Amino acid sequence: MRKFNKVAIIGVGLIGGSIGLGIKRKKAAREVIGIFRRQSTLKKALRYKAVDKGTLDIREGVSDADLVVLATPVLLIPSLALKVLKYAKSGAVITDAGSTKAWIVKTIERMAAQYPSVSFVGSHPMAGSDRTGAEFARRDLIEGAPCIVTKTKKTDRAALDKVVAFWRALGAKVEVMSPAAHDRNVSMISHLPHIVAFSLAEAVSGRQMRYAAEGFRDTTRVASSDPALWAGIFLTNKSQILRACGIFERRCRELLKAIEKLDRRKVCAILRKAKSKRDSFTYGK
Amino acid sequence: MRKFNKVAIIGVGLIGGSIGLGIKRKKAAREVIGIFRRQSTLKKALRYKAVDKGTLDIREGVSDADLVVLATPVLLIPSLALKVLKYAKSGAVITDAGSTKAWIVKTIERMAAQYPSVSFVGSHPMAGSDRTGAEFARRDLIEGAPCIVTKTKKTDRAALDKVVAFWRALGAKVEVMSPAAHDRNVSMISHLPHIVAFSLAEAVSGRQMRYAAEGFRDTTRVASSDPALWAGIFLTNKSQILRACGIFERRCRELLKAIEKLDRRKVCAILRKAKSKRDSFTYGK
Repeated sequence: MRKFNKVAIIGVGLIGGSIGLGIKRKKAAREVIGIFRRQSTLKKALRYKAVDKGTLDIREGVSDADLVVLATPVLLIPSLALKVLKYAKSGAVITDAGSTKAWIVKTIERMAAQYPSVSFVGSHPMAGSDRTGAEFARRDLIEGAPCIVTKTKKTDRAALDKVVAFWRALGAKVEVMSPAAHDRNVSMISHLPHIVAFSLAEAVSGRQMRYAAEGFRDTTRVASSDPALWAGIFLTNKSQILRACGIFERRCRELLKAIEKLDRRKVCAILRKAKSKRDSFTYGK
Repeated sequence: MRKFNKVAIIGVGLIGGSIGLGIKRKKAAREVIGIFRRQSTLKKALRYKAVDKGTLDIREGVSDADLVVLATPVLLIPSLALKVLKYAKSGAVITDAGSTKAWIVKTIERMAAQYPSVSFVGSHPMAGSDRTGAEFARRDLIEGAPCIVTKTKKTDRAALDKVVAFWRALGAKVEVMSPAAHDRNVSMISHLPHIVAFSLAEAVSGRQMRYAAEGFRDTTRVASSDPALWAGIFLTNKSQILRACGIFERRCRELLKAIEKLDRRKVCAILRKAKSKRDSFTYGK
């Protein structure tokens, strides 16, 4: 099911590498080219066969690509998009894989107004790991994962369809929504759990960790994620994250109040409700 | 390495069943008898070979046991201990596997004063799962897990040595401390992560959960744990849990304040510290 002639991926780490492997597995493009900052990561990505070819030159890499995927840390995406807008061929579509959308989409759409022959559509394939680098890329990472594609008043309809078709070709479960709706949803199911995991890991002393078991291990796993990457995500979704933490804090307080009052019935009721929600979640089972 | 002639386990679920399987694997006792409330769970435990024999009669089950292990939910432990104190033979040792210690140990030590020929020593093997029941028991669950054994002014030295030797025979990494120190440590590395996971699962809507991936899955896994069991744990370690949540809340607030100020350097520093702590944790790797 060949959707594209040539796809360029900027930033071939865990996500970008998995996109490259997924494209080749699903035959979604004739050729995949990776664009790198460093020769060492270029060599690594070629070694893991995450892309067919690699270059350090953005202009060269994107010049004849039908689709360009920006898969770098969030904070780097808009400035790279500007370069792609300059160098991409007429009719090319740009998308990204960033974990926040409102700031990225707004910034790029403002710049894109000057490049009417190239279109940008924001995306967020929701799969990941606490590991980084092409060596951890997996050809089935995107398969079955939710992927949000954003739509705004400025979104080109044909470009939107192409981007949706691209993620579907890789096996993602695509849903289209506004960047604001994306950021609100993701603040609850991804950013908040990361805030909580980082804070939990930091709160525990090294001595106490000697007694920790599976509960601590799983609850804090994502605190092993890349700090710079997550700092960028937190800073570009500030207001939704503060709101999500407020909701979480109220739930905590309600539970703690019931514990403080030794209200067994109420504590049980809260835990049962939480368990029933969690039990209904089936991703990756 | 046979430590005991006969061990009785009261409550043969995930933990009690794993203790039974572990005893037999390590040949730590000649015979393991399970004591049950219901015929159905008795049959199930025998089917999974978690115990050699089963009975619904506590008196019969404990009458000639050298060691009695209470592996029921926390809130049931003291009242069952009172029955064991009445029926156990002279020289018998009682221990438990409850997740909180100060309340259990204090309550049982008060009752045990009237039964000087039987000794009680509190234990907490720190292994578990969000599943319950003997069908999820594993013969290696205790192997390599931390196990805290408590010591107070009233603890009989010979009984303490026997209980320590018992858990070591099952492969646990035993550490002896006061019930208060246990409750403080465990509130941070186990109870707090559970409070957080239950609150996170409850805070997220069913609609939002459709976009959730591995981060949400792991951070909230323990919210699938048994509500009644965990209500008992929370209620019997109230003050330490409130204290642990206070520490966690201060860490959260510090991170959120840095995000609110868009202080990238500070956010990165906090996340790096959390990551380095989490990376140093190696349980089960």
